[in-house]
Amino acid sequence: MMLGKREVSMAKVSQAGAGKYSHHYPRVAAIVTVHAGGKDNCMTAAWHSSISVNPPLFGVSIAPKRFTLELILEAKEFGVNFMPIEKAELVASVGGISGREGDKFQRWGIEKEKPLKTSVPILKDAYACYECRLVDHKTYGDHVWVVGEILASHFERELFTGEQALNLERVSPALYLGAELYTIPAKDTIRHLDRKVYGKR
Amino acid sequence: MMLGKREVSMAKVSQAGAGKYSHHYPRVAAIVTVHAGGKDNCMTAAWHSSISVNPPLFGVSIAPKRFTLELILEAKEFGVNFMPIEKAELVASVGGISGREGDKFQRWGIEKEKPLKTSVPILKDAYACYECRLVDHKTYGDHVWVVGEILASHFERELFTGEQALNLERVSPALYLGAELYTIPAKDTIRHLDRKVYGKR
Repeated sequence: MMLGKREVSMAKVSQAGAGKYSHHYPRVAAIVTVHAGGKDNCMTAAWHSSISVNPPLFGVSIAPKRFTLELILEAKEFGVNFMPIEKAELVASVGGISGREGDKFQRWGIEKEKPLKTSVPILKDAYACYECRLVDHKTYGDHVWVVGEILASHFERELFTGEQALNLERVSPALYLGAELYTIPAKDTIRHLDRKVYGKR
Repeated sequence: MMLGKREVSMAKVSQAGAGKYSHHYPRVAAIVTVHAGGKDNCMTAAWHSSISVNPPLFGVSIAPKRFTLELILEAKEFGVNFMPIEKAELVASVGGISGREGDKFQRWGIEKEKPLKTSVPILKDAYACYECRLVDHKTYGDHVWVVGEILASHFERELFTGEQALNLERVSPALYLGAELYTIPAKDTIRHLDRKVYGKR
């Protein structure tokens, strides 16, 4: 199993500031959804993270000019939809225009499923989704950090293992690499490394 | 090129709450470093994100009991080190014990490089690192959201493309899948999907 060709002895470049720092790591492409004032809207988001187990909280970083942010602050809820690589074109499309220019759901025929606890659109094409109630938003620099409590989750059970990890034989999340590039997690390089065992070495 | 076997027509399970929601997406394994009171410490973190471009801000979610958090609040700075799959054992090791139990750097012979703007340890084995000045910390649920401004970055230039995206032919970041499982981004499935083009479809 060939895992990489990296020479660990290479010298690093050091620079003040961040450079194009957001490209330094791959991250899952998500589509954030919202329903407010009779309208649905959605946007792509690559800057997001789980941030608490109990209560289950999830954060998304959104630029203030985004129409979706305006609607989230109005509706006080949002959805997070994790997308498979088969729908990477949709991710790129949704990220390419603003909902102020027209209804993205109609334009690309995006199919919705019923939410359980909120009114946020659940995307049929997502492999997993959260319904979140807005609990906080805070401006950090040029973005707003939007935090929601996960009130309900939707996922395709057959795409996960018994331990609820992703079964990569069955689903390939779209990983965004920056610079308009997408890939997937490799299926043939999975390693099990138990921290309890390795912490004792 | 086989991208996935997913049937998009599968029915989703819907449930109240989040379940094991943090496993719904892969994320890059990072090692957070700190230097305070003459001590170095480090911990693994999978819950993190870029959150602002200008100023460049980066957030990490850390449990309050973590020794590293105590030291970050004391030092008012921290490092973020992105790890390649070749060092996944080190990621698992660092995640397996607390720095209160002993010096992790000494225990596993972790090599350090010189920081540029702070006193945080830069890991020689990382493929890219940020030096951050703490600008905020806020409790969200059972974790603390720690936000830093990236004052300096270190990376191996030959591992990145001209557009500063990762060159996956040369570096394989360790992706954590949950349940102690790791993989890498696939090299042979990269797609270029320009949002400006797709947004106009």
